Amino acid sequence: MLERFGHGGDLRTAQELYGIEADRYLDFSANMNPFGPPPCVAEVLRNYADQIGRYPDPAVRGLRRKLADHHNVDEASVLVGNGAAELIDLAVQLLKPAVTVLTAPCFNEYGDAARKCGSRIRMLQLEPQAQFKLTQEAILSLLKQLREEGTAAGQTLWFLGSPNNPTGQLIEPELVRLLVREGEIVAVDEAFMDFVTDTDCWSLLREAASCTRLIVIRSMTKFYAIPGIRLGYLVAGASLVRAMGELQIPWSVNSLAQLIGEAVLDETDYGDQTIKWLQTERPWFVEQLSALGLLVYEGKVNYVLFQIPDRFGWSSRQLQHALGTRGILIRDASGYEGLNGSYCRSALRFREDHVRLLGELRNLLGKPAE
Amino acid sequence: MLERFGHGGDLRTAQELYGIEADRYLDFSANMNPFGPPPCVAEVLRNYADQIGRYPDPAVRGLRRKLADHHNVDEASVLVGNGAAELIDLAVQLLKPAVTVLTAPCFNEYGDAARKCGSRIRMLQLEPQAQFKLTQEAILSLLKQLREEGTAAGQTLWFLGSPNNPTGQLIEPELVRLLVREGEIVAVDEAFMDFVTDTDCWSLLREAASCTRLIVIRSMTKFYAIPGIRLGYLVAGASLVRAMGELQIPWSVNSLAQLIGEAVLDETDYGDQTIKWLQTERPWFVEQLSALGLLVYEGKVNYVLFQIPDRFGWSSRQLQHALGTRGILIRDASGYEGLNGSYCRSALRFREDHVRLLGELRNLLGKPAE
Repeated sequence: MLERFGHGGDLRTAQELYGIEADRYLDFSANMNPFGPPPCVAEVLRNYADQIGRYPDPAVRGLRRKLADHHNVDEASVLVGNGAAELIDLAVQLLKPAVTVLTAPCFNEYGDAARKCGSRIRMLQLEPQAQFKLTQEAILSLLKQLREEGTAAGQTLWFLGSPNNPTGQLIEPELVRLLVREGEIVAVDEAFMDFVTDTDCWSLLREAASCTRLIVIRSMTKFYAIPGIRLGYLVAGASLVRAMGELQIPWSVNSLAQLIGEAVLDETDYGDQTIKWLQTERPWFVEQLSALGLLVYEGKVNYVLFQIPDRFGWSSRQLQHALGTRGILIRDASGYEGLNGSYCRSALRFREDHVRLLGELRNLLGKPAE
Repeated sequence: MLERFGHGGDLRTAQELYGIEADRYLDFSANMNPFGPPPCVAEVLRNYADQIGRYPDPAVRGLRRKLADHHNVDEASVLVGNGAAELIDLAVQLLKPAVTVLTAPCFNEYGDAARKCGSRIRMLQLEPQAQFKLTQEAILSLLKQLREEGTAAGQTLWFLGSPNNPTGQLIEPELVRLLVREGEIVAVDEAFMDFVTDTDCWSLLREAASCTRLIVIRSMTKFYAIPGIRLGYLVAGASLVRAMGELQIPWSVNSLAQLIGEAVLDETDYGDQTIKWLQTERPWFVEQLSALGLLVYEGKVNYVLFQIPDRFGWSSRQLQHALGTRGILIRDASGYEGLNGSYCRSALRFREDHVRLLGELRNLLGKPAE
């Protein structure tokens, strides 16, 4: 299967599976900003030959300061990582939770990191009827259960995605605040938050900077389309950041990622253009997918979760395979716990790419499954 | 102090300490190949703008295959990491040794990784009188002690550097084989092995590929002068490699490092030129340091450990500081357990750099310490 390493965007596996060269796919399986890296990235690359011979700054001083200024938080509350993946791992390694609460579905890495540390996983099933929204009722009910089982506050790590992957749903900040007030520890993965228009209403980043029980993780690879080089950061209270930093391997963040991170933060036009594109393209693409008879879920980000109704007679895996052999990659979302074999995830791209995908979908779904 | 993050090559801290811009130092504090990155690196960088927008291959298939061919070992025995630092960490994370045996002195990261995992550290003191060579007597005596204390074979991880950092001494392979035969688990850090002329007599890499109790770690950043981008690999039995791979975070090795790794392995002229330089420059530099009255230790690699005899009245820290304010960085080796405040480590560079360092040393050591 395409997700044999657990993720989208694996062009090399696609080549092995579908026989088309890795760089010839139209890729909707990775949720990347379709504008590609902002112009400053090429500029940094041009100058990097003079830098590669030196060790990266082990303390990532330049980028940490810039991120702190960007978000108006204290530098001591910022930790930069080798992609968000490293930060997910560090959070779990540090907190060593007896129990990790995850939503079903959610990004696979939270559970993988928790299991590596021997944490017990507790799944909170999100309901398609409720558009996969996390509700206060569900949280309070689980909290009650945990307490009845003798799990004290502080022994549980709630690992939540906002926007959640693969649903695209945001979490009401008030729900996270409730958990923190109850003494719970919460890590919120805001990897796709930069794609959200009204970020200030949704993000918990600023609050995390002064909190000892809240960690907010951000990725820079999706919004700035630089997944090749790995770059993420987290914001939390200074004591948490210090403790996670001590667990980090030296020079974990390569110097090219540090330089690019500093450069892209100045690219305000790029951000504006991205938000504008998303505001136009998402409603259009959702409407077109719905017109094909697909069931599209709510969301505010640069990817959509949709379901193939039974009447088509196609599973998500069959659809992924048929598209793959035609040079188009989507994500078979049946690998996410809590989703069955009818769910797919697709990134948003430009209009002509959508037109091509929609054309193939119309063509395929009108026939029996291959 | 310059090593506030535990390592050499920290130009940013140098700037903060000595007030000279980071890119204006003559740096002997990091043990980097002075030829700088081989020509293919600039070529890879020129083409990388087209690659950065895609995820790295999560399984590092291209580079693993190339490394396997290069060393004539099975691909399943090779794991690539985000610098050797990640691999040191993974080895300890996987093996969770009750006791970790280290030599004093040795590279700091072995102990840091072991302590993170709660392992007890057992130090094996190397003797300056014996040129810091690891001896069979010392190993057998410690093995006996461990057994008397009830530490069974397999509960101890021996983490050994060959060539050792900061001494430059190699370990007799027969000593490692003895440990493995005794049922002990051994990780050998061969980060600088590429600089050794008769590698085949010293390296345990090929043996590690089919062994379940031996791990050999290599760095690609020192020999190819690419520390900015982070790249290392290890060779061990396939079952060990698989288990460590499962602990690794996804996309741990960025795609630029993967591409550069593949390219530099074809640079045979670069390697020949490096070995030739080292064979000429090391004896000359050692002779000149000795002529200044410094006590230089044996070694076969691109750095030297030397001691400032008491009669000069200079500590290694004082000497490092005086040189730093003059734009030259050396390593104050007193931070290594087992070395006192009279030890320094210097990388080897080109003749004119050596002449400049030697000139400053002559000048400084002829006067009272600053």
